[in-house]
Amino acid sequence: MKHILIIGIGAGDPDYLTVQAIKALNRADVFFVMDKGPAKEKLVALRKEICRRYIEDDDYRIVEATCPERVRDVSDYRASVDDLNADKQAVFERLIAEELADGECGAFLVWGDPALYDSTIRIVEAIARSGRHVLDFEVIPGISSIQALVAKHRTTLNSIGQALEITPARRLAEGFPERLDSVLVMLDAKNTYKRFVGEDMDIFWGAYVGTPDEILIGGRLAEVADEIEQVRAEARSRHGWIMDTYLLRRRVGE
Amino acid sequence: MKHILIIGIGAGDPDYLTVQAIKALNRADVFFVMDKGPAKEKLVALRKEICRRYIEDDDYRIVEATCPERVRDVSDYRASVDDLNADKQAVFERLIAEELADGECGAFLVWGDPALYDSTIRIVEAIARSGRHVLDFEVIPGISSIQALVAKHRTTLNSIGQALEITPARRLAEGFPERLDSVLVMLDAKNTYKRFVGEDMDIFWGAYVGTPDEILIGGRLAEVADEIEQVRAEARSRHGWIMDTYLLRRRVGE
Ligand SMILES: C[S@@+](CC[C@H](N)C(=O)[O-])C[C@H]1O[C@@H](n2cnc3c(N)ncnc32)[C@H](O)[C@@H]1O
Ligand SMILES: C[S@@+](CC[C@H](N)C(=O)[O-])C[C@H]1O[C@@H](n2cnc3c(N)ncnc32)[C@H](O)[C@@H]1O
Repeated sequence: MKHILIIGIGAGDPDYLTVQAIKALNRADVFFVMDKGPAKEKLVALRKEICRRYIEDDDYRIVEATCPERVRDVSDYRASVDDLNADKQAVFERLIAEELADGECGAFLVWGDPALYDSTIRIVEAIARSGRHVLDFEVIPGISSIQALVAKHRTTLNSIGQALEITPARRLAEGFPERLDSVLVMLDAKNTYKRFVGEDMDIFWGAYVGTPDEILIGGRLAEVADEIEQVRAEARSRHGWIMDTYLLRRRVGE
Repeated sequence: MKHILIIGIGAGDPDYLTVQAIKALNRADVFFVMDKGPAKEKLVALRKEICRRYIEDDDYRIVEATCPERVRDVSDYRASVDDLNADKQAVFERLIAEELADGECGAFLVWGDPALYDSTIRIVEAIARSGRHVLDFEVIPGISSIQALVAKHRTTLNSIGQALEITPARRLAEGFPERLDSVLVMLDAKNTYKRFVGEDMDIFWGAYVGTPDEILIGGRLAEVADEIEQVRAEARSRHGWIMDTYLLRRRVGE
């Protein structure tokens, strides 16, 4: 039997780690690190820093693997993600087969919460289900970027008694959900919030939340949209990459 | 200046505390504890256990306050919550005025994530905004019950590329959101999931998640709905109270 731990490490600040995650780090023999893209260096460094800071002895190894890149701008989003995940699954399977001995415990350190817009759980589940490996796995939740965002803005995810939506920007581009007042937007490369400047909304925006580069802007959407666009473009070109998220909230019943 | 820390303690397991929350616990001089209802005893005990376990010296005090009860089954939900929050605000203000000296740091320990269906942030914000106290406050995110739920079920909040909704059961009773496949339901006293047994859905249900009393049931909704109803009723009568939450996910594109 091989053991896999899928550990949420929170969205940037090493202080976001939970006690449960720290205990899990200390159970792992091998860490699989497979970031990609322009932020790769920073993200890998943070993971190593987390291992250094929280693991009590140094009898662990880190295995870096190259992570397949998603083909951008294809028309069938779902199919392209499926393709990517099939490739990722092959890489994960190779790691589990070659780098993890029977009885050992391997860990994936997942940014934020593994349950939110991340494929690690799905992939490990598919490998376990395939029956090709005798495998069990565990998921450890982490502080997601949207929780970090609203905490820093000292606001809530929902308004009183209301539902809220968490959405990739692609879906929001189809329209603001009719019945809702609060929408948390992730994975936005296109300033989708600008579509709603004509409506009476607040925005709570943040980039690199929880990291030393954190930027926060909040206010009435119509008043701060241009500033966000400008600050975002500037930060993105300075860092070479950006991760940002925001809450849009309709002003209703006030 | 008085300082207030609104600290998310996670949804049951003391191991859900983050390092940030533990540091915040150690900064506080006074803890305000104000649970209510039939679960009060357990919830107060857990908070005290968290203080005992994580605070390094014992130069802190705990102040228990009676928390006003919400008037149940009123027709105007929003108005009744507003009334309740006005009462709560009066209690919080009294605590801040009488129990917290200038320069001291007071903490509210909030179940799960303070950003999710909890009024502490809104109330402290209103007090700070009132100008009647020189106050600053900070919010520390915590692992919410829905994150604990899906981690235990080893599933994700969203499906690939899709949005998700988090909703109080009252809203779900108006219908399953058209455009979505995944809905996380909280605050359900009425087995609202049963309305959807005719549809092709999975349910991931959990009660007392993260505590020693945890119960998890998952599967095709039509097949497990009766079992959930029965187990829920039995657990509720045995404990005298229940807290449960679930993910409903439409089976699509399979
Ligand atoms: C692939 S998703 C992963 C989300 C992650 N599992 C979580 O729980 O936050 C990546 C998206 O999360 C958001 N994100 C992640 N970390 C962030 C941070 N520190 N600040 C702002 N946004 C962040 C951005 O919207 C980014 O496009
Ligand atoms: C007033 S809300 C507070 C939510 C909390 N702030 C959070 O982040 O989980 C209370 C609801 O949360 C859910 N809940 C909280 N803790 C739970 C647990 N340990 N297991 C299952 N459901 C829980 C239930 O749906 C309950 O009705």
